[in-house]
Formats: sequence, structure tokens, C-alpha cells
Amino acid sequence: MTDIPSPLMRGAAIRGRIDALAAISAQPDGLTRVFASPEQRRAASLVADWMRESGMTAREDAIGNVIGRYEATQDGAKALLLGSHLDSVRDAGRWDGPLGVVTAIACVDALRRARRRLPVAVEIVGFCDEEGTRFGATMLGSRALTGRFDPALLGLTDEAGISMAQAMREAGLDPDAIGQAARRPEAFAGYLELHIEQGPVLEREHLPVGCVTAIAGQTRLAVTFTGMAGHAGTVPMAGRHDALAAAAEAVLAIEAAAQAQPGVVGTVGRLEVLPGAVNVIPGRVRFTADLRAPQDESRARLVGAVRAAIGRIAAARGIAAEVAVTHEEPATPCAPALRRLIAAAIDEAGWPALRLPSGAGHDAMEVAAIMPVGMVFVRCRGGLSHHPGEHVSDEDAEAGARVLHRAITKFPELAA
Amino acid sequence: MTDIPSPLMRGAAIRGRIDALAAISAQPDGLTRVFASPEQRRAASLVADWMRESGMTAREDAIGNVIGRYEATQDGAKALLLGSHLDSVRDAGRWDGPLGVVTAIACVDALRRARRRLPVAVEIVGFCDEEGTRFGATMLGSRALTGRFDPALLGLTDEAGISMAQAMREAGLDPDAIGQAARRPEAFAGYLELHIEQGPVLEREHLPVGCVTAIAGQTRLAVTFTGMAGHAGTVPMAGRHDALAAAAEAVLAIEAAAQAQPGVVGTVGRLEVLPGAVNVIPGRVRFTADLRAPQDESRARLVGAVRAAIGRIAAARGIAAEVAVTHEEPATPCAPALRRLIAAAIDEAGWPALRLPSGAGHDAMEVAAIMPVGMVFVRCRGGLSHHPGEHVSDEDAEAGARVLHRAITKFPELAA
Repeated sequence: MTDIPSPLMRGAAIRGRIDALAAISAQPDGLTRVFASPEQRRAASLVADWMRESGMTAREDAIGNVIGRYEATQDGAKALLLGSHLDSVRDAGRWDGPLGVVTAIACVDALRRARRRLPVAVEIVGFCDEEGTRFGATMLGSRALTGRFDPALLGLTDEAGISMAQAMREAGLDPDAIGQAARRPEAFAGYLELHIEQGPVLEREHLPVGCVTAIAGQTRLAVTFTGMAGHAGTVPMAGRHDALAAAAEAVLAIEAAAQAQPGVVGTVGRLEVLPGAVNVIPGRVRFTADLRAPQDESRARLVGAVRAAIGRIAAARGIAAEVAVTHEEPATPCAPALRRLIAAAIDEAGWPALRLPSGAGHDAMEVAAIMPVGMVFVRCRGGLSHHPGEHVSDEDAEAGARVLHRAITKFPELAA
Repeated sequence: MTDIPSPLMRGAAIRGRIDALAAISAQPDGLTRVFASPEQRRAASLVADWMRESGMTAREDAIGNVIGRYEATQDGAKALLLGSHLDSVRDAGRWDGPLGVVTAIACVDALRRARRRLPVAVEIVGFCDEEGTRFGATMLGSRALTGRFDPALLGLTDEAGISMAQAMREAGLDPDAIGQAARRPEAFAGYLELHIEQGPVLEREHLPVGCVTAIAGQTRLAVTFTGMAGHAGTVPMAGRHDALAAAAEAVLAIEAAAQAQPGVVGTVGRLEVLPGAVNVIPGRVRFTADLRAPQDESRARLVGAVRAAIGRIAAARGIAAEVAVTHEEPATPCAPALRRLIAAAIDEAGWPALRLPSGAGHDAMEVAAIMPVGMVFVRCRGGLSHHPGEHVSDEDAEAGARVLHRAITKFPELAA
């Protein structure tokens, strides 16, 4: 490999640190690291050590985020925030989250080695919870940082019946102090998050990295079709009100509505048939629709098309339809200036700058509440994530680090 | 009501006996009467009493069928067999089965009152098991009568782990003697079964009775589509192999294939989605297809069309399809002469003789192995069956009895 600003940016070095973090797990044969667990605290402590080795000050905040700071040319300057999350799902992959923290530290290490200070400070955060594995509620770490953590969440309980407040105390954290983790928007100039794609697009395009345009907004629907159950042998086709046949039309209508707009996805992931006997015409079907789009207008069109199709199908079949919105989250556009910055960094590093939306949620969604955000995606094998087989090649990890380093060093020009 | 050959043929009288049988149940608040139960034996005993009151000899056979005989003008003549079953599903309706036995006895009572003997004897059977509620295997009573009872069935166990053989012994029946229940085909001239329709056709046509053309044959398929699971947000529509979208196409293709032929039905009653999470593209779907037709050629065309559609859908979506036949039963055509006899009886009773197939199975399917069979359908409210709300009006019950009586008295002309 050619000249590199820090050996920590090399693929093998990045992989070494990813593996070191993966070894800090609640399960012996795989990776599970959840909010307010001993593992999560140990991972934060290891990351703090790495930050200090690379010339940063490091601390944990009140909720357990680990935060390092590499000072600017002038003390107290606004900071460019980098980072991602250190927690995981159960039986997780090792790259989802930590890659953004490890590459960010490597980039700061490159600044330290060059004895270079920027007009902005660089802060790196390793968020203590993004996945929401333990308590269901996601992005606890970034919510605390933006000051939008709702104390009502402290009453949520995990599978063992332990409340979030109690879990924090057992982990040596003070739930009453979470407000102290909130940062002022004025303290930051922007946020850059490097993360694995968790999808197949970069692999299909044979590119190691890409520039995220927006984090998709999402609408989740719960749909119930109620028709008329009946004997599969004795009710002629003409008189049927088959709830599953109606749902089948809806599944295909949702697929078609999503296909009609670029970058939009629609999925029926759950579908339950009642009564569910081989010789009984389904009287009721419940299913979900997960609808996502990088622009809220696209999502509104998608949801409208799906609702219209459901109404049309139900009316044509003499079936009752109920549609409930169970979740709604607007899209988070990446800041145009940060998109240009990242695209230029990819371009200068020698690859075409593919722009793609993120269909999955990321800390950047929450951080966007208080500052402009940008994201770099790194290719992962087969698009596989949330699975022990999740994998990033050394070459791709290094490509991500190089792009991030370029974006960081060019950022002050942008902020100027 | 006008002149009637026996007061037992009146709707209210039929209802009275249906209610008396419904009171003989394993559950206090509803009707459950299964094979080799004390209730089943008591019901058979009550029916035997009614048979004797109407001038018949009556006995139980080795498996627990109750059989009455009204002798012909000459002793030992061939018999016209009438009847249906006395067992029920769990939490059953009261008309499914007993109506055919109660109306048959009323018709013989009319012969007795008229001091009339026919050139054929009339036998009535109350089968001890048609539903298969207790041991899964259906039509145990008629299988014993035709001599096609497979002794291997005696090893089947009920939910309590009691074998069929043991259950029979506990009920005072001898499993080793079942072969003695077999009747010689030469003993019979034909079989007429009156049964509720268990479907909505007669109600829709505003007719109390109908003439069954055939009992539909049936093919059951178990289909598995295996595509590729993935994140509902990160996998673009274009690269998906969504097993549920494929299954949705198959559900609609099955519906369309059934609609393409008159009298044919096709139903997907069970469908299971894996992994079944709101935000995961379904990687695998398992579903059943229940395909029925009154002619085996129609069913063969239907099954062929469904298999072809499944293959086409799977190929177009890059999905693997497995299709297994889990059940196959040929159609049982009603004997043309008996269809004409019943149609003429309906016509003479003053209604248009609607001919319709039976989508559900009946004892007549099994009895057809040793003699020609015919069936009279009686309207039931809303087509509802296998449910406590199952209902036949007094007028319709009486209409059924009148048609059956006419068919019985005209039968000797046919046999001559």
C-alpha cells in the first residue's frame, strides 16, 4: 500500500481494533454488547485509551458515551464531531458501529503525527446505544447528546425486568445526571459518520465507499383485512370474501408502488392468516407494511398509493380494511455542503462518488437535530449485517479511513 | 301444513329429535360427540329405539354403527340403504349428520303407517364416525360397513394417548370384531344420504333442497418458496427475492385458476412468513393449497395450472419452489339414476331441482365403494356448519323429508 498518514488507517490495523472490540462481549462465542452493560463500559474504556494514545482528551458522559477531543488551533473552537455507536444487536456483526469510531481515531492519529491542528476541534463520540437492543428504545446515546433524551424512557424494563434507571445505576451511571450529557449546538460545526452500508448497493457497483444523500424516513402500517371465513370446499369462488386473496393483492400493490419511485422501498415483512386452517377460507389477515423513502414527499406519495390500493382492493372484494400507522419518522437529509465534501473526498481518493440513500437508521438521524450531518458508507460483503457473518475487507476499511481523513482535513475550508 | 305421510316428517318433529340427540354430548353447553364415547353409544341406542318404534329391527354393528331394517315384501330382499352419521366435531352444530338419520326414520315411519312394504328392504344406518374428530382418521363407520377398515388404524391415539383399540374396548366394543361389520355389496341396491349443504348455494338460490351431482375430489398441496431475506430498508426493490411477494402472486394465481372452471374451488388457508419481522424481507414462505373439483379431469387441470403458475412465478423472481402433494382423493360421482330419482322427487315436491356438487366429504364417498350413491342437500342458514350456530328451518327440514320420502317410494321402479 502507498503512503498513508497514520499506520492506524491501514486495513489490518483497523481490523485489529475491530477484533479487539468484538472480544468484549456478553456471549463467549459471538458478539452481544448492550446499553449499560459491563461490556459496554469496558468497550468505552478501551476506546478512551485509544483516543488518549492519539493525542485526544477523553471522558465518558453521563449516559455512557465515550467522547474524545482533539483541540483546534485555538482552544474552545467549534468542533467537527465524528463517530458512531459501540453497542450491538444480539449475536451481532463486529463492523456495524465500531468501524466509524475506529476509523475516526485513526484519522485524528494522522493529525497528531503530522503535528497538525485544524481551525476546528475534532471530537469523536462512541455512542453507548444506537440499536436499542436492551430496552427497545433506540439511539439513547445520541438522544442524550442532543438533549432530547426523554426521562420517561428510564422506566422501560429489559427482558429480566430491570428498569433502565436501575441498569444505569448498576453500571455505575447516574440516571438523574443524563441532562448533563446534552451539548450545545453552538459547540459543533457538523457531524460526519462513517458506517457500513448494511445493504448490497456498493457491492453491486464494485465500489468500496459511497456518499449518503439522506437517511430514509419511514412509515410503518398495520393493516387488517376482515372478510368472511368459510369452508374451502362448500363456498363457491363467486361468493367469497377471502381476506388472504385481498392481502395478496395488497402485497403486490405495495411492491409495485415502491418500484414506481427510485430509491423508495416497501416491504410486507409480517403476515398472519386467521383462522389459518388448510380447509378454511381465511376470514382475517393482519400484515405490516414498512415504507421508506429518502425524501418525505416520495414517502407521502408511497403511503398515499398504498392506502388507495388497500381501499380499492377491500371495496372490490367486499372486505373491511383497517389501516393504522404504527411508526412514522421523517427523512434526515444529509447537509448539501457535507455531501459535496464527502463526494469530493471520494473523488480525490480515486473512486466515482456514488450517492445513495441509507434505508437503515443511524445516529446521524438524531444528531441532525442540532447540527448538519454527513455520512460515508463502506461496502460490506453481501450487504449482510446484524449477523456474525458481517464483513468488511481490509482494503475497504482503509478506503473508508482515507475518505474520512480527506473530508476532515477539507472540512475547515467548508466551515470558513 | 298439508297432508303428510307421517307426523315424524313435520319440521317441528324433526327438530325435536335433532334437539334430543344434541342433548347427548360430552360438553354441558354445546355439542361434542366423538367415536367410541359413552355419548356416541347413548345416541346410537336412542336412534335404535326410534327405529323400533317405526317398525324396524335395529342393532349395533361391531364398530358401533346403529342399523335398522324395514323388511321388503319378501324377506331377504336387497336393501335401499339410507342414513348419515351420528358423531360430531367439537363444539358442533346439531344438524350435520343426524338430519339424514332422523328424516330417514320418519320416512320409514310413513311406510309403516301406510302398511306399505316395498320390493326392496329399507335399511337405515347411523354411522358412528364420519368426522374423525377423536383419532384424525375419518369415516371409520362407513369404512367398517364397506369392509375397507384398515386394522392399522386401531393403533391411532387420541389427545389423551388412548389408542383406538383401547377406546373401543372401554366403550364395550370389540376391535377384533370390526370385520364382522362388513356388508356384502349384493345386500344393497343403493344408498341415499340426506345432509345439510354446509355451504351457501341453496340459500343464495332460495331453494330448500338440492340434488348432489358429485362429491368433489381433492388435492392438497404444501408449497415452500425460498427467496432471500434482507433488511427492509437497505435492499433496493430491484435486487430482491421476496418470498412473500412470490406467494402473493401464487395466491392470486390459485384463485384465478379455480375461477376459470365452474364448480371448482381453490383455497390458500394457511400461509406462514419467515422470519416474520416487520423490517425484514421475507426469505421463506410456506403455504397450503386446497383444490377441489367435482370431476377428476377438472381437478387435474386445476392442479396443473397451479403447478405451472408456481413454477413461472418462482422462475421470474429467482426463488426456489417446492411443491408437495399432502392429500389426494378422487371425486365420487353420484349415480346418474339416483341423481335423476332425486331430481324428479324435488321437482314433484314443487321446487326446481338444482344440481350442485358437494365440496365437503360425506359417508357417501366411502359407501360408493360398494353401491351406487345419491345425495339430497338441505339448505342451512348462512351456509354455516361445524359451529353451534348451524341451523335448518322447520320448513326446510320437512322439505328434505318429503323429497327423501318421494325418492324412497319411487326407488323400486328404478331398481326394477
